[in-house]
Amino acid sequence: MNSPICAMLDIEFPLLAFSHCRDVVAAVSKAGGMGVFGAVNLSPDRLREELDWIDAHAGGKPYGVDLIVPNTFQGKGEKHDTGTLISSIPQEHKDFAAGILADHDIETGDLEKSRGMSANFAKNLREEGAATSLEVAFEYPIKLIANALGVPPQAMLDLGRHHDIPVAALVGAKEHAVAQVNAGVDILVVAGGEAGGHCGEVSTMVLVPEVARALREIGAETPVLAAGGITTGEQMAAAMAMGAAGAWCGSVWLTTAEAETNPIVKEKMLAASSRDTVRSRSRTGKPSRQLRSPWTDAWEAKGAPEPLPMPLQSMVSEPALRQIDKLSQGGHQGAKDLATYWVGQGVGLMNQPMSSGQVVQQFKEEFAAACERLSDSLGG
Amino acid sequence: MNSPICAMLDIEFPLLAFSHCRDVVAAVSKAGGMGVFGAVNLSPDRLREELDWIDAHAGGKPYGVDLIVPNTFQGKGEKHDTGTLISSIPQEHKDFAAGILADHDIETGDLEKSRGMSANFAKNLREEGAATSLEVAFEYPIKLIANALGVPPQAMLDLGRHHDIPVAALVGAKEHAVAQVNAGVDILVVAGGEAGGHCGEVSTMVLVPEVARALREIGAETPVLAAGGITTGEQMAAAMAMGAAGAWCGSVWLTTAEAETNPIVKEKMLAASSRDTVRSRSRTGKPSRQLRSPWTDAWEAKGAPEPLPMPLQSMVSEPALRQIDKLSQGGHQGAKDLATYWVGQGVGLMNQPMSSGQVVQQFKEEFAAACERLSDSLGG
Repeated sequence: MNSPICAMLDIEFPLLAFSHCRDVVAAVSKAGGMGVFGAVNLSPDRLREELDWIDAHAGGKPYGVDLIVPNTFQGKGEKHDTGTLISSIPQEHKDFAAGILADHDIETGDLEKSRGMSANFAKNLREEGAATSLEVAFEYPIKLIANALGVPPQAMLDLGRHHDIPVAALVGAKEHAVAQVNAGVDILVVAGGEAGGHCGEVSTMVLVPEVARALREIGAETPVLAAGGITTGEQMAAAMAMGAAGAWCGSVWLTTAEAETNPIVKEKMLAASSRDTVRSRSRTGKPSRQLRSPWTDAWEAKGAPEPLPMPLQSMVSEPALRQIDKLSQGGHQGAKDLATYWVGQGVGLMNQPMSSGQVVQQFKEEFAAACERLSDSLGG
Repeated sequence: MNSPICAMLDIEFPLLAFSHCRDVVAAVSKAGGMGVFGAVNLSPDRLREELDWIDAHAGGKPYGVDLIVPNTFQGKGEKHDTGTLISSIPQEHKDFAAGILADHDIETGDLEKSRGMSANFAKNLREEGAATSLEVAFEYPIKLIANALGVPPQAMLDLGRHHDIPVAALVGAKEHAVAQVNAGVDILVVAGGEAGGHCGEVSTMVLVPEVARALREIGAETPVLAAGGITTGEQMAAAMAMGAAGAWCGSVWLTTAEAETNPIVKEKMLAASSRDTVRSRSRTGKPSRQLRSPWTDAWEAKGAPEPLPMPLQSMVSEPALRQIDKLSQGGHQGAKDLATYWVGQGVGLMNQPMSSGQVVQQFKEEFAAACERLSDSLGG
């Protein structure tokens, strides 16, 4: 296809797949799009293992890596050990999370033990952790490096430049887009508030043309990938009609055959409508969109504790949600009810289980149909 | 153009303009779209006066009328007189509204006096009031009748059928769309959560294809007008790529030369970005999107009173906002700060004052450019 993204990344169809699942990444790259591996919360050895596998299974097609380095979170640049972080979580929050579990007949004895593991996630969010992941990523022939939260750290921009690999960054507001371009970002992932995971408030339908206009005004030709709510090829075509060079999707892969999503959550997602998500600070401390469940409802209810800043809130939520995931897969009813995961409003359009390759194929067909539909509207 | 909406309404370009300003309605109809007059809060005589004017100035082109009859509000079907309604407003709410004004150096002595006028708005929301407006509307050669909140009353559907005039209704969720079609609605206005005024939570980018799919599943061919955030022709093209038959826009007309928008608010809108709106229950009791100002911030702050059900909240907010509008136009700084009005996130794309005819013309050009952009993406 004729898109600056295809030329830049040497791919056939400008559909990028963000996934924590290596199978999805390889499958999408092989199908003509580009898989981007979300490498948060992995040790250097585990990251190497995953990238070895992807490199062996992507059929020689280009793939990328995505890291998260937020601009502001408690502890950035400081040396905190796990114990210090854990001790700064208020008892109220620990009790509240445990209370939700207890209300659903879930044992809460193991929560403290697994809080240490969450601290690894927190550590990875600190610049040192991400820097290690960055170095590992560049040991591989990646064709894209992305930062999912805020302006990429200088080390990422420098390594991208050094290896001649484009650096992508996620933005949820026009003002951030301009700042990112000025910082040297090569590709903007412009994500509307309907997106799963961390998201802003402005919708994709407004934000994509607003950013495109802002870039024109500063004379920038940085290509834009539209994100947020996009789970079909006709939505991708819509975004490209508004000036995007392609689409960046996360949610749509969660229900594919390859995805390692909790099967209970997969089933919930396939049944969900677009109104079954909530934008909440209860998982990470920053607003992120998730499948609604009694867990998210409890945190959104009046009287719930105010979520903590990053990375502390994750250290409250993740141990509980891991417990929920484990028990739900064993058939525990309370855990099945509570089970949730990040997903965008596009979940309302994800109604059938498919393979990742089938999703790419369907995107291509829907994209072509949408182009034809629009061109037909002009005739007659 | 080739759209079921053009055929159904006998118009050239499937762009519908919702406006409370008769000049906008006539101008858009004359320019090849269709103006739809928002006739809320008018006496039968005032409505006749407005429709006489539109009929004389639309150059023989089709125009429509929009009424609001919500499904659920306090007092529906009951006979409440103005006094009874006013006496059921809690003192806390009256004090809170007056307090915001006082904090901005605004006299609050007249608020009680003007509360009676707001009760007229409330009355019109009751079925009897709307039924009177309906009868007046059908005295004119309207080509569309629309209901902006919930399933249209049976009287509207019957009159539409009797006069062979399509009935349109606004929906913000897939489930409502199916219910509306089953009730006999001829055109669905599918409005995303980024819309100004009353709105749901699902974004236009998701809701339009989700509704289109739901209609296919029940075998309905009801045409869909996309609404919510759309203020440019490229966004209209995007919506049509996803299966919409056209667009329904409200916000974009508010900053046109013809619009009777408070000039202070007009100026704020032209300067606003897409992040300067808020979805709040503080104006009518139901969630509606508005330009952010210290007025809306106060109602969204912690400790603010919970908004009242329709129509009581309007009887708290409207007298205060009318006072703010009046004083702001006289140059009162506190009132200028507080001034606000309903507008969607598309306000971020409304940066230049234009006439309504110019807006239609620009839509057509942007629409054509978007079609070309999308068709170019396929080539090469």
